Amino acid sequence: MTETREDGFLGGRLQITQPARGYRSGADAVMLAAACPAQAGQRVLELGCGAGVASLCLGWRVPGLHLVGLEQQEDFAELARGNGARNGIALRVMTGDLSRPPAELKALSFDHVIANPPYFLSGTPAPLAGRAAARQEVTPLSVWLDAGLRRLRPGGILTLIQRADRLDDLLVGLRGRAGAIAVLPIAARAGRQAGRVLLTAQKGARSPLRLLAPFVMHAGAAHERDGEDLTEVARAVLRDGQPITRLFAKVS
Amino acid sequence: MTETREDGFLGGRLQITQPARGYRSGADAVMLAAACPAQAGQRVLELGCGAGVASLCLGWRVPGLHLVGLEQQEDFAELARGNGARNGIALRVMTGDLSRPPAELKALSFDHVIANPPYFLSGTPAPLAGRAAARQEVTPLSVWLDAGLRRLRPGGILTLIQRADRLDDLLVGLRGRAGAIAVLPIAARAGRQAGRVLLTAQKGARSPLRLLAPFVMHAGAAHERDGEDLTEVARAVLRDGQPITRLFAKVS
Repeated sequence: MTETREDGFLGGRLQITQPARGYRSGADAVMLAAACPAQAGQRVLELGCGAGVASLCLGWRVPGLHLVGLEQQEDFAELARGNGARNGIALRVMTGDLSRPPAELKALSFDHVIANPPYFLSGTPAPLAGRAAARQEVTPLSVWLDAGLRRLRPGGILTLIQRADRLDDLLVGLRGRAGAIAVLPIAARAGRQAGRVLLTAQKGARSPLRLLAPFVMHAGAAHERDGEDLTEVARAVLRDGQPITRLFAKVS
Repeated sequence: MTETREDGFLGGRLQITQPARGYRSGADAVMLAAACPAQAGQRVLELGCGAGVASLCLGWRVPGLHLVGLEQQEDFAELARGNGARNGIALRVMTGDLSRPPAELKALSFDHVIANPPYFLSGTPAPLAGRAAARQEVTPLSVWLDAGLRRLRPGGILTLIQRADRLDDLLVGLRGRAGAIAVLPIAARAGRQAGRVLLTAQKGARSPLRLLAPFVMHAGAAHERDGEDLTEVARAVLRDGQPITRLFAKVS
């Protein structure tokens, strides 16, 4: 690993060591953790955990989870282990390729799988070679979905964050294998098209999809000044570590 | 056809004869027409045109279209023909099954196909037998998509309105055959999950999906009184016949 730096998450409640340059986790990892409805005592796997931000945000919010991360790059896996220890959150990190998971992982099943798969298709130029695997889609999105579904127990829940323009790929990949899908569009500002989607899906379920009202990150119609213009809901998630699981709750 | 009645659409600009009981077109047909980006001189096919409401709303807004409707039920087809004549809008209505289109239709290709496929899965009880075919999914949604794509010229545009919980079926059905998909969630009120989606897709295109900001029908947090509580944008579409095509326009 090259030079690292310290980043605060959840209003400084978590201190995370990340690479100083190249791929760093940010708001997406925090949103992913906020959307996962895991409860104390449950087993959670993060695919491609990087430096561990999403798993550790989740572990901070929900004590008593059994957290496992899978990370292909050993230097990121080491960072994740150190970040867990430094923040006092038990996170077991395995090094391995999600398309050929290690035997010790294949022996486990989970109540929840979370993932923030890379956003950029392979073939996109990577200015910094070191971040290629973290940012580019070396492993197809369908393989991430497949790996996640395989590690879930029946009825277990997959929670993903992804670029909104991959929604079709997500729904095609989950077809016939998971149901009760809920899609939360994430928009930079009110009235804008979604930049990201948060998606939850239940393995083996057959109940219909729900397309939720958008989660809006920034207040106002346009960027007006540097610094904070987070909406109240975004601030609650990003600064205070609040969950957004209630947004996914079924309306009876 | 049993008893009929007259309904005004677009603030009374269109007078439509529909069955007095059972299936009647409403706001969904008007929204479908408002979303279709057809321009003067183009050919437009409506699959399952019923009494012709969507095609006639479109024809009212965009003069000079070549409008063709396909309707399986002869009594609805007759109503559509009469509604076109009464409102002074040229609408050619063919009677036939979209899964086995008539030869005269198969000889044609279109710049636009629009459809409002039935919302209720076959097997749902139909209290009134007469509306079974119009409301129930006797023909699978995938067959509607297939029929629409077959009748489009390369680069032609499919515009659909459907229940939001069928979004996965829509995207799976369009997979690899249409792109540049834009999904407009339609919500009864701000902050509610989408009840419908309006979707446009371009035959043979490969550009990525866009998930747009929701179109909100009613103002306020809950239904407070009978009568009008339409949002300004919904009123513009439903009462004044304004398009919503700009919502689908790409943001550069």
